[in-house]
Amino acid sequence: MNMTSRSRAEIAADQRPGTFRAEWFTIAACTAMVLLLLLAVVGKAEAATRGSGDLALVVERANGSLQVVETTGNTSLTRIEGLGDLSHASAVFSRDQRYAYVFGRDGGLTKVDVLEGRIVARVVQSGNSIGGAISQDGSLVAVSNYEPGGVKVFSADDLALVADIPATYGDGKRSKVIGLVDVPGQRFAFSLWDAGEIWLADFSAGSEPAITRFEDIGRNPYDALITPNGRYYIAGLFGEDGLALLDLWHPENGVQRILPGYGRGEQKLPVYKMPHLEGWAVAGNRAFVPAVGRHEVLVIDMNTWQEAGRITVAGQPVFVMGRPDGREVWVNFAFPNNDTVQVIDSESLNVVKQLQPGKGVLHMEFEPRGEEVWVSVRDLDELHVYDTATYERRSLLPAQKPSGIFMTSRAARIGL
Amino acid sequence: MNMTSRSRAEIAADQRPGTFRAEWFTIAACTAMVLLLLLAVVGKAEAATRGSGDLALVVERANGSLQVVETTGNTSLTRIEGLGDLSHASAVFSRDQRYAYVFGRDGGLTKVDVLEGRIVARVVQSGNSIGGAISQDGSLVAVSNYEPGGVKVFSADDLALVADIPATYGDGKRSKVIGLVDVPGQRFAFSLWDAGEIWLADFSAGSEPAITRFEDIGRNPYDALITPNGRYYIAGLFGEDGLALLDLWHPENGVQRILPGYGRGEQKLPVYKMPHLEGWAVAGNRAFVPAVGRHEVLVIDMNTWQEAGRITVAGQPVFVMGRPDGREVWVNFAFPNNDTVQVIDSESLNVVKQLQPGKGVLHMEFEPRGEEVWVSVRDLDELHVYDTATYERRSLLPAQKPSGIFMTSRAARIGL
Repeated sequence: MNMTSRSRAEIAADQRPGTFRAEWFTIAACTAMVLLLLLAVVGKAEAATRGSGDLALVVERANGSLQVVETTGNTSLTRIEGLGDLSHASAVFSRDQRYAYVFGRDGGLTKVDVLEGRIVARVVQSGNSIGGAISQDGSLVAVSNYEPGGVKVFSADDLALVADIPATYGDGKRSKVIGLVDVPGQRFAFSLWDAGEIWLADFSAGSEPAITRFEDIGRNPYDALITPNGRYYIAGLFGEDGLALLDLWHPENGVQRILPGYGRGEQKLPVYKMPHLEGWAVAGNRAFVPAVGRHEVLVIDMNTWQEAGRITVAGQPVFVMGRPDGREVWVNFAFPNNDTVQVIDSESLNVVKQLQPGKGVLHMEFEPRGEEVWVSVRDLDELHVYDTATYERRSLLPAQKPSGIFMTSRAARIGL
Repeated sequence: MNMTSRSRAEIAADQRPGTFRAEWFTIAACTAMVLLLLLAVVGKAEAATRGSGDLALVVERANGSLQVVETTGNTSLTRIEGLGDLSHASAVFSRDQRYAYVFGRDGGLTKVDVLEGRIVARVVQSGNSIGGAISQDGSLVAVSNYEPGGVKVFSADDLALVADIPATYGDGKRSKVIGLVDVPGQRFAFSLWDAGEIWLADFSAGSEPAITRFEDIGRNPYDALITPNGRYYIAGLFGEDGLALLDLWHPENGVQRILPGYGRGEQKLPVYKMPHLEGWAVAGNRAFVPAVGRHEVLVIDMNTWQEAGRITVAGQPVFVMGRPDGREVWVNFAFPNNDTVQVIDSESLNVVKQLQPGKGVLHMEFEPRGEEVWVSVRDLDELHVYDTATYERRSLLPAQKPSGIFMTSRAARIGL
């Protein structure tokens, strides 16, 4: 529109109050819309544009929610709700660390966008499950189930079912499955509680796994772990003493029994809470494992797989976690000692520090280079962050009945 | 504005062509602005909202640029230019994995936003530098300098100078500094080429470091490494045979000499390219190190620090890298064998595979769980990605004279 060509009447009309107001209104509305859009979109982008290396998920078991925290400033970022029954829940991470796969007790498998703080996909894939794992290449998520017993494997992308592995044994019965971990070479290892077997499922050729069964490994394997390099798979036995060891570099050698003195022993001591093997500590050639039922941490010489010592501790150990540099080992305990954390010097084997965070210490997770450790204190509804050099508490965050703490740095580790 | 109160004249005016065009123009302009803003902001947000766990920086030495790649789909994301002289450049990452700190040969220290693909800050802090490290808590970035010799420490936030540590010795001369690594406990370790010393700088009390000097460790330490748990700092010696070992759990024991047979030996073999110690491989209790000048990889028993074997390889080894599960060790070579990569079985110590990626294989970096390895092939201007199970090449990406490859997963590792 060329101003010089406009008639006086037009110019007069433009200047009349009504028309002016109409244009002003249009411009004001547009401007407001632009500002609102900018605020909305930039605000969202700012929230989501961040590195994912220093994030962690905290399971809030009573509410079925996850709290997303960051471990640089030790602050809470957001809460994700609607994950179902999160008692005994655990999580693994996508290789880009953006997504978590959360395994709930109710058979729920939930894919969570950690950066955006929302659920992306969710399936209830069994009646009762007990953890899972993500394949070496990040494409497959496997879940170990109690009911019906077996392993189901899903696409990490959209949680579509890729493979169903019923844990059948004997005359077709199905066994509860525990101790599911990823193994290098696009494999998963797991143990069959009822059958007393260890299975290896190899997905390197595609979605049809090649299954290798190791039978008669011992009665009632209750949990298992894989060493940080992915070589040794070790299952704890509830039904008898000792541990079942499978050298994954030499599966042809079968499963051997180690540490015959490991277990509840002749007296069948009461066990208040099953220890977790997956958190065991490796420091140099020594591994530190929670004794079952006893107030002891066992030391294993990993060159010989012989017992190399016993350390008397404050209660029945649950998690025995090595600081990432292996210099110290942190231990928490079953009821009634679940208000206590003890720190063991991995060289002298002495308890060098005792902390009392409060009732209900359920889990501990070290930051990946070990400068701090996060502790969930369920009965106080608190997360504590301790400086591992001074043992001082650096941060305290509220959380609703916190249990497991899972840092995104697990994405880069074998067996986590 | 209430339509019913408007006069016929006003309505007529609104409907006259000129006024209509004016309002239409305003609305169209506003709409266009909104759309452009949305495109710009959403586009930017989409690009930046992604996990940072599967990213890597590739140094393009000839152009002073970095290529940002992702290791899930094996694609190139962006290129960052303007980093100065990147010959012999290296990088460390912030603990959230968003930022990289790039150490250039020209003394340039550049902070790069890996997610947004841009330079955030840059200082030229010396005349000639040779690598750096980031402190355990991620707050400090240290650079080792040749000219003037010493270590400068900067705030990881804004690259403000925090501490200047001149590497003085004798009558006030300054030594070139090499082998700078982070040590648990907010410390840095480094070696003095001219002085034959190892220094430990402890920043746990703040920005004034406590310095511990270890003198007479051997002539001309040329590179050093720290074991993955942060316990042993080991410097290679160019001026004499053997390696200098410092047990950081027991600095009071001083530096001891190990592997007296390690080195160029009596004949002083020509060395075409200094091997890198930082890439050495640890598999179980064995460490694999490049021999100096010889066509051999040396095997060290880490329990006794004695030589446990020698493996004949295709040339003078440069990088000897353990696959993350320790099952295999990959080796590249100095000119004229720099077109070759060999793979050693860490158990049998046999060379089990030989690859010929092409002339100018400068660096290799394993994905953190080991399923693939990235190889820079300088003279072909290519990055190759190999499947470590099948040795097949899965991807090929163009790159401009690529050298070092640095994955963000290093953020979670001690000594990287």
